[in-house]
Amino acid sequence: MLHAIVMAGGSGTRFWPASRAGLPKQLLPLAGDRTLLEDTVDRLDGLVPPERTMVVTSARLLDAVRQQLPALPDELLVGEPCKRDTAPCIGLAALLVSRTDPDATMAVMPSDHVIRPIEAFCHAIQQAARLVEAAPGRLVTFGIRPTYPAESFGYIQQGQPLPVGPGEAPAHAVASFREKPPASVAEEYLAAGTYLWNAGIFVWKASTILTALAERQPECLAHLERIAAAWDGPDQERVFAEEFAAIKGISIDYAVLEHARDVAVIEAPFGWDDLGGWSAVARQRGADDAGNTVVGQHLDIDSTGTIVHAADGHLVVTLGLADMLVVHTPDATLVASRDREEAVRKVVAELENRGWTEFL
Amino acid sequence: MLHAIVMAGGSGTRFWPASRAGLPKQLLPLAGDRTLLEDTVDRLDGLVPPERTMVVTSARLLDAVRQQLPALPDELLVGEPCKRDTAPCIGLAALLVSRTDPDATMAVMPSDHVIRPIEAFCHAIQQAARLVEAAPGRLVTFGIRPTYPAESFGYIQQGQPLPVGPGEAPAHAVASFREKPPASVAEEYLAAGTYLWNAGIFVWKASTILTALAERQPECLAHLERIAAAWDGPDQERVFAEEFAAIKGISIDYAVLEHARDVAVIEAPFGWDDLGGWSAVARQRGADDAGNTVVGQHLDIDSTGTIVHAADGHLVVTLGLADMLVVHTPDATLVASRDREEAVRKVVAELENRGWTEFL
Repeated sequence: MLHAIVMAGGSGTRFWPASRAGLPKQLLPLAGDRTLLEDTVDRLDGLVPPERTMVVTSARLLDAVRQQLPALPDELLVGEPCKRDTAPCIGLAALLVSRTDPDATMAVMPSDHVIRPIEAFCHAIQQAARLVEAAPGRLVTFGIRPTYPAESFGYIQQGQPLPVGPGEAPAHAVASFREKPPASVAEEYLAAGTYLWNAGIFVWKASTILTALAERQPECLAHLERIAAAWDGPDQERVFAEEFAAIKGISIDYAVLEHARDVAVIEAPFGWDDLGGWSAVARQRGADDAGNTVVGQHLDIDSTGTIVHAADGHLVVTLGLADMLVVHTPDATLVASRDREEAVRKVVAELENRGWTEFL
Repeated sequence: MLHAIVMAGGSGTRFWPASRAGLPKQLLPLAGDRTLLEDTVDRLDGLVPPERTMVVTSARLLDAVRQQLPALPDELLVGEPCKRDTAPCIGLAALLVSRTDPDATMAVMPSDHVIRPIEAFCHAIQQAARLVEAAPGRLVTFGIRPTYPAESFGYIQQGQPLPVGPGEAPAHAVASFREKPPASVAEEYLAAGTYLWNAGIFVWKASTILTALAERQPECLAHLERIAAAWDGPDQERVFAEEFAAIKGISIDYAVLEHARDVAVIEAPFGWDDLGGWSAVARQRGADDAGNTVVGQHLDIDSTGTIVHAADGHLVVTLGLADMLVVHTPDATLVASRDREEAVRKVVAELENRGWTEFL
């Protein structure tokens, strides 16, 4: 059976002050009226039922996640006691779903991307599940056709084409994984036409990924198995905290994918945006006639290309701005030039430096 | 005896959202730690005692003014029931001080200007009082030596020099008053060297200004006399409201000064700024090494020439801004390009248009 594993532990700082340590990107309604996490779970409707949808987040976000996903069984909300990247997260999920469904197929996905339309996403996941059924040892990834020479994404090189049915998306064996490349290399990838962005969405058998972890990350898996053995028992919390903390953080890409023999990539037939910053939000939401993108109560005179986000009833007035970003929250406001959007992370770092933790 | 009449009825909109209908410019600590009104009254210390200092404001500001000036006798706080410009305000003050001091000399001044140093101001007012003692029918004004061809000020043309004592400022008979001139004329005035900006500060006998009003504005004076007659009686409030509303608003300049025979102008020996907008605030407060002027909790990365005003504990972060204005208040925030500072008034007009009165 198909299970969904939603990874919701991110703590992005690019959306500060809208995003905070206790309210990261995936918990914000950045692209629409629903939060990115809500959208991610809504997207599974008809594909995977709530009783097979697991959300793995960090322990301190559990309450907020529970509030946003009231339909999900509480035992399927997993709160990691610390951050250990994606391999431990996915390995633990594989162990937990295997307890009741040893032949489980897992669709693993981030909770903070924008994916539209839903139908195309569901079809693609079903296609991936069929690829796994056809070759149970296979790991299936999703690649996004690049639209510019991005330096901030990993790339997947397409190898031999795999047979696809009518209406299915192109699928290939993976020739190689490439880390975030410098600009010149990214240009080459874009020109070659055979490199796709790694969307971080995976479909595979739980048993397959556990076998791969046993081979490549035996220590990690041993810790995870001790956690799974104590699950639902009186020592669950203590064992989870101790064993998880002892794991060395590593991504599933480094831990498994780059070394695996049978990896396939489906060229995503859906629109995808990892929402890497406010300009991506503006792209998703669209702009008004003046080129401004606004959430909240706002009055403008003569501004263009400006993003305003004030979702708290506060009035923001912009006057004669060009390509600016204004984010208002009850206790902090950011005003930035949009071309400095990447440096919002420096703001968060500086707040940490100064010990102004109440704003983090 | 010398009486001070502080005019505090202004409702400037250039400092929105810091200034509001119920909290106009003069009630804000724009240039320092004290409000402009508090500074104005502080400035009289040693020159005029509280029991001879009258503050005329609008009725709805009375409570706020009373809070800021606890040392002033309550009966010297006058709240106009409606706005009628400076002539009715000054005429009423003249009638009220004359009741107990028929020979009163009045120093009339706005409450929303920055004047430094205090000593120079006091010396200049005393010099004006001596000019009035020497010629009781004389009206004394103060002129500011222009530093640029301002179009937003009235000008006073210096005529024949008047005799001045040692250490006194230059004084002249007034040759003419000129309204706010177009740029080319302002350039001529600046080049001529004999035109001063009208500071709106006046010294004269109460009896003299009342005689002038009787001659030029008999209807206005008749209304004011009915108000003064009812003052301190059971009908004070009703008569004040009815009679004041019936007066046609007019400035003391148009009503009296431009027609008077014996008007002198003292060239102000003090620094003066009418604080016409946020850039004037920055000029008064000075800037940090990056050229930014900040009031409130603030973090900056790479901004220059930017004014931040957030006097409410809220954190404002600026990132990569150049010559911007950020004003934060609990319910509204303005972000503007500093070169559009004059258009802040358009913001207030637009709020009125939209009926967003809660922000006015």
